Amino acid sequence: MDDYEQFISRVKDIHKIGALQGHLGWDQETIMPPNGAQSRGEILSWLAKEQHERTTDPIIGELVEKLSKDESLNQDQRANVKEMKRRYEKASKLPSEFVAEFAKTKSEALLAWQQARSESNFEMFRPTLQKLIDMTKQKIGFYGIETTPYDVLLDEFEVGMTVEDYDPLFDGLKQRLVPLLQKIMNAKETNPDPILPEQMTFSIEGQTEFCTKVSNAMGFDFEGGRMDISTHPFSAGLWPGDTRFTTRFDEKDPFSCLYAVMHETGHALYEQGLSREHSFTPRGDAVSLGVHESQSRFWENQIGRTPAFWHVTLPWFKEQFPDSPDWTPEDLNKIANSVTPGFIRVEADEITYNLHVMLRYEIEKQIFNEDLPVDDLPKLWNSMFEEWFGLEVPNDTKGCLQDIHWSMGAFGYFPTYTLGNLYASQLLHAMSNELGDIDTIIKSGDWSSLLDWLGPRIHQEGSKWTPSELIENATGMPPSPEPFLNYVEEKYSKLYNLD
Amino acid sequence: MDDYEQFISRVKDIHKIGALQGHLGWDQETIMPPNGAQSRGEILSWLAKEQHERTTDPIIGELVEKLSKDESLNQDQRANVKEMKRRYEKASKLPSEFVAEFAKTKSEALLAWQQARSESNFEMFRPTLQKLIDMTKQKIGFYGIETTPYDVLLDEFEVGMTVEDYDPLFDGLKQRLVPLLQKIMNAKETNPDPILPEQMTFSIEGQTEFCTKVSNAMGFDFEGGRMDISTHPFSAGLWPGDTRFTTRFDEKDPFSCLYAVMHETGHALYEQGLSREHSFTPRGDAVSLGVHESQSRFWENQIGRTPAFWHVTLPWFKEQFPDSPDWTPEDLNKIANSVTPGFIRVEADEITYNLHVMLRYEIEKQIFNEDLPVDDLPKLWNSMFEEWFGLEVPNDTKGCLQDIHWSMGAFGYFPTYTLGNLYASQLLHAMSNELGDIDTIIKSGDWSSLLDWLGPRIHQEGSKWTPSELIENATGMPPSPEPFLNYVEEKYSKLYNLD
Repeated sequence: MDDYEQFISRVKDIHKIGALQGHLGWDQETIMPPNGAQSRGEILSWLAKEQHERTTDPIIGELVEKLSKDESLNQDQRANVKEMKRRYEKASKLPSEFVAEFAKTKSEALLAWQQARSESNFEMFRPTLQKLIDMTKQKIGFYGIETTPYDVLLDEFEVGMTVEDYDPLFDGLKQRLVPLLQKIMNAKETNPDPILPEQMTFSIEGQTEFCTKVSNAMGFDFEGGRMDISTHPFSAGLWPGDTRFTTRFDEKDPFSCLYAVMHETGHALYEQGLSREHSFTPRGDAVSLGVHESQSRFWENQIGRTPAFWHVTLPWFKEQFPDSPDWTPEDLNKIANSVTPGFIRVEADEITYNLHVMLRYEIEKQIFNEDLPVDDLPKLWNSMFEEWFGLEVPNDTKGCLQDIHWSMGAFGYFPTYTLGNLYASQLLHAMSNELGDIDTIIKSGDWSSLLDWLGPRIHQEGSKWTPSELIENATGMPPSPEPFLNYVEEKYSKLYNLD
Repeated sequence: MDDYEQFISRVKDIHKIGALQGHLGWDQETIMPPNGAQSRGEILSWLAKEQHERTTDPIIGELVEKLSKDESLNQDQRANVKEMKRRYEKASKLPSEFVAEFAKTKSEALLAWQQARSESNFEMFRPTLQKLIDMTKQKIGFYGIETTPYDVLLDEFEVGMTVEDYDPLFDGLKQRLVPLLQKIMNAKETNPDPILPEQMTFSIEGQTEFCTKVSNAMGFDFEGGRMDISTHPFSAGLWPGDTRFTTRFDEKDPFSCLYAVMHETGHALYEQGLSREHSFTPRGDAVSLGVHESQSRFWENQIGRTPAFWHVTLPWFKEQFPDSPDWTPEDLNKIANSVTPGFIRVEADEITYNLHVMLRYEIEKQIFNEDLPVDDLPKLWNSMFEEWFGLEVPNDTKGCLQDIHWSMGAFGYFPTYTLGNLYASQLLHAMSNELGDIDTIIKSGDWSSLLDWLGPRIHQEGSKWTPSELIENATGMPPSPEPFLNYVEEKYSKLYNLD
């Protein structure tokens, strides 16, 4: 075996361990019996240690050093060497025991969070959250701080992004989103949105049928994947031929399931679209969380929250719910886009969504850059929420316990959601320049040209380029908030007849 | 770390890989999307190779050599050393590449078998079956033949058992079972069994409720386990706190699900009852397939197929199926025990069941000791079946394609089913000597004393002893067919009023 073959064979083994972690994670959140938690934690911890030991094996260090200078490698091979070099250098800073212990703590924390959330009792989550934060600070210490401690975490989820990048970006967004929100709220006062009839229920079976049909129309291959139920919807691209996503059901609100399904299907289409040729290597992986999120938000909002979408799917909806009011596509679209400051991020409209993200960003900054005590977290959350959204948080389930991320030790993750929104708008813009009016395509009911456009430009490219390079290659411009701001201003001006 | 600590830490890692294989196997047979098969095979093959490499690591060899002579070890530790020594010596005879290739072939074969079975098309399974048999012969070659080639396989599933043991055992069983069967068939001619009304259907929901209640009453902890659906019911003790079993449903026949559930719950109770203290070591594993099967058959037949069982559960049954005929517990018991030579082993009564096992045993002997060509297998099956059961096999789904085992490369496995039947009767016999009349206990509806009796004598003992030692310790006599023969003769004489 030559050096590259040796290298890639080891890389694939490391990825297989990652795939196993993904599989057990999926199982844990969907179907695992409750008493399995402890052993599951043990196994996940062991896998994390195994993966870490293999990633930091000195042989990997020697190989990436040698291969970094090898001019004969092609573009794909270079991408694998570059990414593994980065991972080797980062991972080498963490002791194996720490990695194993952290994985175990995360597994326990997930369970504690689930219980705390269902009982809206922050106290039940506090001790493990404290432990997670302490360990995360330890991790920051291992990695070493170059600018601020929080920057170390931001870099883990979107390579190269720092507080210095996010602060002005978020400020810029705020400057145009807050006045837009104000205008919308004013317009709503005299002309309120239609709503779902309070008495009506939508059967789980009907929702399942309807959402499956939508997911299918988007291009999800159910022969190579599954849809299941979990508290917090997510998508897991286990390995070629097996991509799974989850949703949840609310009998009073069929939109909760629908947009979760469209969102997760967006993620899942990325996973199903990755290059099989490069399976189990970085080149065959999705490039970043921001880009991943662009795929889910694209389908959820820019396709799913349009009159054109409801034009096609209203008959499917009617078939499952024949007793629903005599809605037009425009009515349903208005309900689906209703701008209402609410407690739950994943149910937020496109305007307030980014405010939710920024709130978490500000709190995380305080935790890691200013040592905010964990005990103060709910209080801070609630007071900031009241200030930003004008709403008093009634309980922690609707407040600081709503998201799964902290229980997974994923601090620094949230800002990638906003990046996803920005990238999605850039993609829509570029796509419409090439394919013509997107509404016309959606209305036709055949959406395959959209997926066909994304495939070679995003999905199949895997991690060949950095996220910025990928977005620039696909859209002809570097990452920018302009297309997103133009998109929401135009969309909501039309929806609410703003001047 | 001292030698034993080093040893046991490695042993636990090897067992964790085994647990992952079990988890993926469970997933593959219950919920995996069809296109996931290829990658699943790759991952399973990789895990098999990893497990094999670690089992045959020379360090394991050195450690078991040293520890075998260490007088300071306690009984539990000795059991671990002894079993790992056996595995090390066996596994060292197989090349890693062979192990990986075999695992991959088995994974492909499972899929081919499922398709072939559903279309009753042996030809679809033939090529992979051929490959499996060829590879199994190769494996026999690696291990080395001491007596006959088939003995090498028998030993894999019940250590120490050979053709020389099974041939006379099976002959002895045949000598008393065949005349008993004849007597029963004669008695049935003038006095046929009651049957399920042909027009009646039993809802899946009702069956699920009823069977869950029974499984619960047997002692299965649903907080530490799951019940799911698969083509071929099975049980998988994944790891502490997570034991899963499956069943299948037939709307025309609620007994198909019920007795699958009782059977698999029997296996699952063994897994849930293993000593947690010894998790991920041989000492904490079930000792053998024969003993495992004794647990499933005990609950399925000796508890579940009695008038006393139906006395307790008839009201539960009526609750789910209020439109069913006005059956007495005795009626249902007669239906559940009806002796009828049929095509499917897992649905067979206790008399013909062992004939099914022997038929497979004879065929496997011919494959490995007499090189029976694969092409001749269906023909041989059908002709033997007609001779032994007096029935013409209508298609291969009811014939040689019915069982999953060959697709899993599990040749030499079937005889352990008969051992299970024998052990179960010995246990029942010993249990009634200690606890008093078992029927009275069953009728009380509180079956906990049965599980409490089995726990310390079988479950918690894990692999501390050999199967024979375990059975002798628990029952006061070495393994023997007498209690089983006495049991069936007595039971069926009563059921059919034989003289």
